[in-house]
Amino acid sequence: MNEELRWLNAPAATLDDDARRQAEARQASLTKPPGALGRLETLAVRLASMQGIPRPWVDRVHIAVFVGDHGVAAEDVSAFPQAVTVEMVRNFAQGGGAINVLARELGARLEVLNLGTITDPGPLDGVLDLRLGAGTANFTREPAMSEDQLARAVDAGRHSAERAKAVGAHIFIGGEMGIGNTTAATALACALLKAPPEALAGPGTGLDAAGVRRKIEVIHRALALHAAQLSDPVEALRRLGGFEIAALTGAFIACAQMSLPVLVDGFISSAAALTAARLCNGAVSWFLYSHASPEPGHAHLLTALDAQPLLDLGMRLGEGSGAAVAVPLLRLACALHAGMATFAEARVSEQL
Amino acid sequence: MNEELRWLNAPAATLDDDARRQAEARQASLTKPPGALGRLETLAVRLASMQGIPRPWVDRVHIAVFVGDHGVAAEDVSAFPQAVTVEMVRNFAQGGGAINVLARELGARLEVLNLGTITDPGPLDGVLDLRLGAGTANFTREPAMSEDQLARAVDAGRHSAERAKAVGAHIFIGGEMGIGNTTAATALACALLKAPPEALAGPGTGLDAAGVRRKIEVIHRALALHAAQLSDPVEALRRLGGFEIAALTGAFIACAQMSLPVLVDGFISSAAALTAARLCNGAVSWFLYSHASPEPGHAHLLTALDAQPLLDLGMRLGEGSGAAVAVPLLRLACALHAGMATFAEARVSEQL
Repeated sequence: MNEELRWLNAPAATLDDDARRQAEARQASLTKPPGALGRLETLAVRLASMQGIPRPWVDRVHIAVFVGDHGVAAEDVSAFPQAVTVEMVRNFAQGGGAINVLARELGARLEVLNLGTITDPGPLDGVLDLRLGAGTANFTREPAMSEDQLARAVDAGRHSAERAKAVGAHIFIGGEMGIGNTTAATALACALLKAPPEALAGPGTGLDAAGVRRKIEVIHRALALHAAQLSDPVEALRRLGGFEIAALTGAFIACAQMSLPVLVDGFISSAAALTAARLCNGAVSWFLYSHASPEPGHAHLLTALDAQPLLDLGMRLGEGSGAAVAVPLLRLACALHAGMATFAEARVSEQL
Repeated sequence: MNEELRWLNAPAATLDDDARRQAEARQASLTKPPGALGRLETLAVRLASMQGIPRPWVDRVHIAVFVGDHGVAAEDVSAFPQAVTVEMVRNFAQGGGAINVLARELGARLEVLNLGTITDPGPLDGVLDLRLGAGTANFTREPAMSEDQLARAVDAGRHSAERAKAVGAHIFIGGEMGIGNTTAATALACALLKAPPEALAGPGTGLDAAGVRRKIEVIHRALALHAAQLSDPVEALRRLGGFEIAALTGAFIACAQMSLPVLVDGFISSAAALTAARLCNGAVSWFLYSHASPEPGHAHLLTALDAQPLLDLGMRLGEGSGAAVAVPLLRLACALHAGMATFAEARVSEQL
């Protein structure tokens, strides 16, 4: 492996078992039947073990939206023109995207990172210009990224995670935007899961049945071209991924290494999460899963990650939007855990 | 039917089709693939048709927790002693219950209504004393409520809904607390659905298998005793329900008649919602469903109501807690609907 990528293999931080036990004991003492708050209870306990304190909280939320264009868009695999990627970067800069609205509502810190739109939008408020090229290469013909581009993309993710950690974020959310990126994520997922594209490919932003068939055929060609190199997750990421998927992978691994919990968004983010899991021992301990996407590949990724997402609302937008929508559940889980009275405090009788 | 109950049969208000169409048009214009926000889109449109405005909002939330004891608790059908009902009323008054924490986090108005604990807790801050008796009668031997008690219980619900409407609430949440009330709700659901107790009964707050078998046997006896009167939903409610279930039914019907959207909680509330649906034409148009309970009867009630709850987190506490946890989803749906840029505003290209 390239020297610059060795950090991806360093192990994740370990969870705090003491804090977990204390949180479990507190849950058992609260004025409710045991388990009656369902997953809000296990969520509070999980966050306690991540934060290393018996009463966790989720106040500061860091959202990073990684943007990149995809050479494979030339194969006609999206319902939207490729120009939408850079147009959406401008929309994010003006505060008009779904993730802008959600970040405002949540009081979350939002950064947008342009890792390589096909055209240069010029300087924009709130957008970090980190363009690594005019989109990736068309992976039906050559690797999507050079080794240098891959290293810089994962570093962009790591630096975003480091900024989050530096300001004391309690949760890291990685989002993405890039026309064609469900094709890249599906190809990468096929490589990691050794699954056929027929099982994983879906409509993305809105392909019709003929479009999905074309997408499957495109992924078949890519898998055949790169077949000999795909057993290495780094090579699978470099050849089939994208700038934003690589950045998400780097961010997720850096978070896990720095003890910063990650709230994983949907299909694209889960492909990055599985790549991170394959590279970094223990990384999955730091991942919480926000929602189930209707994109068919997502269920396969979630199974491979042993993940149970919190929400299932048919969301398939990306941008980190599904994860953002799940943030109030984490906050309410923490509030209940910290704020409810115990049986002893309230003088309420316990179970017979 | 008793004259005092005739209002339950007045029809619900109608939804605003103009507002719905305007909201649908706005959703189609926002900078995202059509449908990409999934149920958050349909939720915003639904709220628009309920509120009669193209950009709905859910700021003011009214939560009413109805409390009552159950004579059937004498049949040993709960994992907790009956004294817990009144102990929890005190806990609510002191702010220590789950619903207190959630109401504070949401900035919601919370009222607790004591409709009949077995003992009188005396005056308590934030608790309305409306005791109709020392719990209901044991419905394995006689009707749970007299006609007068039923009329006063549904009126208590109506008056709570009227207070919510008077202060401009955007959403009404009804919660409940009462040891033994899953047995009452299950018996009522069996009567309304013509389903056997074996299909619907569950552990409630934590019965073991032997306890569930006992609960089933108790419900069988009650259904046999009252069989001749159960085809009338009002009689089913009076004979098998409880003070809090009757109040929820009255509240939900009053909301539907006054154009106040209801966010239905879990199993007990859904039994009241189905009773309301059977009594009041069009009431279900005003119901949103917050979460799926693991109590087995809930799935049957949701099917009968044609309901798709927003959350499935294994919650089974009552108190309105599941509905409260879903409130941020409604708020974020409204924020996205109102706050995102349109394709035209952002100059983003539409679908190919």
